[in-house]
Amino acid sequence: MSGQRRLSDDERLDWLRLIRSDNVGPRTFRALVNHCGSVRAALTTLPDLARRGGAARPIRVCPADDAERELAAARARGVSLIAEVEPDYPMRLRMIDDAPPLLAVRGALAVLARPMIALVGARNASAAGLRVAQRLAHELGQAGLVVVSGLARGIDAAAHQASLASGTVAVLAGGHNHIYPPENVTLAEAVAAQGALITEMPLGWEPRAKDFPRRNRLISGCAAGVVVVEAAKRSGSLITARMALEQGREVFAVPGSPLDPRAEGSNGLLKQGATLVTEAAYVVAVVTPILGGSPPGFAAQEPSAEPPLPPGIESDLRQRIVSLLGPTPVSIDDLIRLSGGSAAAVRVVLLELELAGRLIRHPGGLVSIT
Amino acid sequence: MSGQRRLSDDERLDWLRLIRSDNVGPRTFRALVNHCGSVRAALTTLPDLARRGGAARPIRVCPADDAERELAAARARGVSLIAEVEPDYPMRLRMIDDAPPLLAVRGALAVLARPMIALVGARNASAAGLRVAQRLAHELGQAGLVVVSGLARGIDAAAHQASLASGTVAVLAGGHNHIYPPENVTLAEAVAAQGALITEMPLGWEPRAKDFPRRNRLISGCAAGVVVVEAAKRSGSLITARMALEQGREVFAVPGSPLDPRAEGSNGLLKQGATLVTEAAYVVAVVTPILGGSPPGFAAQEPSAEPPLPPGIESDLRQRIVSLLGPTPVSIDDLIRLSGGSAAAVRVVLLELELAGRLIRHPGGLVSIT
Repeated sequence: MSGQRRLSDDERLDWLRLIRSDNVGPRTFRALVNHCGSVRAALTTLPDLARRGGAARPIRVCPADDAERELAAARARGVSLIAEVEPDYPMRLRMIDDAPPLLAVRGALAVLARPMIALVGARNASAAGLRVAQRLAHELGQAGLVVVSGLARGIDAAAHQASLASGTVAVLAGGHNHIYPPENVTLAEAVAAQGALITEMPLGWEPRAKDFPRRNRLISGCAAGVVVVEAAKRSGSLITARMALEQGREVFAVPGSPLDPRAEGSNGLLKQGATLVTEAAYVVAVVTPILGGSPPGFAAQEPSAEPPLPPGIESDLRQRIVSLLGPTPVSIDDLIRLSGGSAAAVRVVLLELELAGRLIRHPGGLVSIT
Repeated sequence: MSGQRRLSDDERLDWLRLIRSDNVGPRTFRALVNHCGSVRAALTTLPDLARRGGAARPIRVCPADDAERELAAARARGVSLIAEVEPDYPMRLRMIDDAPPLLAVRGALAVLARPMIALVGARNASAAGLRVAQRLAHELGQAGLVVVSGLARGIDAAAHQASLASGTVAVLAGGHNHIYPPENVTLAEAVAAQGALITEMPLGWEPRAKDFPRRNRLISGCAAGVVVVEAAKRSGSLITARMALEQGREVFAVPGSPLDPRAEGSNGLLKQGATLVTEAAYVVAVVTPILGGSPPGFAAQEPSAEPPLPPGIESDLRQRIVSLLGPTPVSIDDLIRLSGGSAAAVRVVLLELELAGRLIRHPGGLVSIT
């Protein structure tokens, strides 16, 4: 059962090896475990699956030595690697379909067990925006909510600062040894001391541009809702808001003057139906009923009931599916219907294609091929 | 047919006498005309109806001399009294159920025939609010809409100023000889020269506090929608927005910072479902389909089909209705049902009570007795 067990040292090593292997992301990790029955079995089967998917060259499985070194370095840095089946893993994050199998946490694990609300916004925030962020963060903290944000300049930093005492979580785009931006290293230490820093990346990972949108799904994923304080057009905060919607989280936005370009994004969210917020009490009123329920579990570690497919049929099906796929994303449901394969068989073929680096997964259960 | 005929001089005199008589407001005016068959007949029947309603002393019917003097003074001031059945009367205003039977207009009548949008807001507006109002007024004008507002300080004045060239209408709370506030007399002259000033009040009427909310229904009534730019809590602009909702008009609000008390009212409107607006194009897009249709007619001047009630039944019914009424507003539909009277008969009794100064009408077809 999710959140009910603890990994052994050997298991944690296996988990780390699998997620650090080539072409394995959170979704592939889950699919592999569901298909193969266990993480250990997935590590063994991985090269074969990738080969059947048409990988150009043999897939690289993370060696045990590398994973051991990473675990030791994390321990030395005070970083715990929490698996999504373990009780310390944030409850809501476990519910998103691309939840990191392992979360690297530095700080107080207890804060991750409490209900969270995300507070994000512009880096070049206005004085008014910063004040609003501070006030909201403080009041949300008073209401018992942990404030989660991205440790960026501006709104994010103000939100963390104002919720240090009540509980705050910073989600990093890079590893724990690469705090970004450097000017927030002191704030990061304070967050680690009183709250928690979390990331799915290896310790020494230097964040690149594309790691920030990827990270944003964790900010919204941890939280019951996302409050956007100031956001320009095409800003990272809008990505977090979009992730929140895809994850079924509440999206709140603080209104601003039409003359202020830093309010264009948040006003735009309001036009699209985000909930207008001017005070924390309103956010608390909306999320309180949501926080009542408990999340659905994650079906990992239960072996797939279906036996492996006979090689012949499988090869036919693979070919049919590949020919159905193209650069335009299509739904997996359509693939199942059009290919004539069983749902389980189609999923195995897609998994192999993914491991071979040929499949791209899109939000909403859509896939395309490169 | 509404908007299809012009009053003769004698008729205009009768209309003015009736609306200037005691206890006759726009709703009573309509009810009287529908009941009696014509304005002339209503003038004759008025004292008798009021007596039957239980008036403490004989009702004062406006003498012909007084009305003639008002007409002459209006002419001298360049003010036309337009009846709601005449083509120059603003089309949308004719649709509200308490449309003034006569509108005193100074300026260009042509502007009243064009589609209007109301732009209202705080008197103590911020510099940003004034700029937004100017920009919206200018752009709405460019889109072919006449901007209607209340000639108040702040947002109203900025809206008029920025739409002088494209078309603007100011609705006064007092008479044409009492421009309020005095500092806007120059602006009022400019509006009269390029647009129009309108009011339902007599030439020399000095506006009192309660005349402003009453006036606000005309601002929203003229318009396809109301845009609120800055509004504090419990401000007049919120009254205009409420009137707009009751009249089935679109309500738009410009968002503002939660730190700005001048945005509390407009942000509050947004929370209640007003349409968020940051640019005129959005308002234009929403109201354009609305402006396509033509308004329903007004049934005045068509005599009531029902014959007068026998005095005995009427007296019984009046007593039943009076006993059903109290200080708590009740719906006319309930009165019809509970009294057992016909809808027409109940309406006559209510009309008599109103003329006798005993009935108060509330929004939503509710009535109470004093």
